Order: sequence, then C-alpha cells, then structure tokens
Amino acid sequence: MWGMAKTPEPPYYAVIFSSLRTDGDHGYGAMAERMLALAARQEGFLGVESAREGLGITVSYWASEEAIKNWKQNAEHLEAQRLGHNTWYAGFKVRVARVERDYGG
Amino acid sequence: MWGMAKTPEPPYYAVIFSSLRTDGDHGYGAMAERMLALAARQEGFLGVESAREGLGITVSYWASEEAIKNWKQNAEHLEAQRLGHNTWYAGFKVRVARVERDYGG
Repeated sequence: MWGMAKTPEPPYYAVIFSSLRTDGDHGYGAMAERMLALAARQEGFLGVESAREGLGITVSYWASEEAIKNWKQNAEHLEAQRLGHNTWYAGFKVRVARVERDYGG
Repeated sequence: MWGMAKTPEPPYYAVIFSSLRTDGDHGYGAMAERMLALAARQEGFLGVESAREGLGITVSYWASEEAIKNWKQNAEHLEAQRLGHNTWYAGFKVRVARVERDYGG
C-alpha cells in the first residue's frame, strides 16, 4: 500500500498500466515490489498509485516523456517486462498520457 | 468487475480518480454502481477501469475534454460528487490527462 501520490502542479505525465494476472505467483510479488522501489529511484519519477481487484491498475507519474523512455529501457525493468508478457499477465495495456489539470486532495 | 477498457487509437482523454474511503458504506456501493452505469451512457464515453485495494483507482476514458466537462456537470453526478466529498472519501484526487500513445492488449 503506497497510498495516494503527491504530484506537483501539472503538466506532468502519467503511465496507466492496466493488467489481468495469470494464476499463481511465479515470482510476481517480489518483482512487483522490486520494480516499484527501482522506479522510485529513477530521474523524473514523481509518484505511483496501485490497486488490484481482479483487474490491476498501476499509475506512475513522471516529469517528462524522456523519463518514461529511460525507465522503459532500464535493464532490470526490461527483464521484468519480458517475464510479465510471458508469464504474469493474461493481458495488459499501457497508456502514456499528459496530465493537464488536477484537483482535490 | 468491468475488466480492461477497449479504447480507440489515441489521442483521447483519461480521468484518473484516486481515492481513500472513509469507514462504512453509507450508500457508497449502490451510488458507485449507478455512476458507472450513468457515465457509460454519456456522449463521448469510451470505457472505464476500476480497482480498490485500500487505495481506489478509477480511470475513465473520454473522446474529448468537452465530454469530460459535460459528465462533471451531470445533475446526478453533481449530487454524487457532493456526497463523495462530504461522506465517502477521506481524500481524493482527480487528474485529467490526454492519452498520447498506448500499446499492449
């Protein structure tokens, strides 16, 4: 449980990752935790929010498109992506979006 | 469980609604279901994804900013927003974002 992300004033970027898991853990839990910790250390990382209820939604927030590209190319993350596609996810979708306004708190 | 949203080719818009609930239902479950059904009938609605695990994340997808504004001003939705702020949510954040690219499936 990471709670709600404290993001700066827009504009910034959101990566909305939606997924359905396959059955069984197969190392997923440990890798998911590792990836959150690793993402949090990337340049331009602003925060992350995550929940799973059958459908899993993880939204990570970033300062720039470049920061998103760098994270996507991170070597450990590339290996996690490969395992995700082959083993952990029955289906997934990644949407890269520019946050233009926000409110509430 | 509504599963993963089937959205068209970008660009389109995403409204990322993150929230923490107060204790007890107080009519929340029924209203949440009603709002999902009502949103799905709005002009420009493209889909919705939702999960709660302590933190709740609901991402609704829309064809345009105008569709988002119309939904925000819907009379029944205004009443739900009022109850949400006063009763159901300990905290919430709404982020309006333009989806620029997506992949996976």
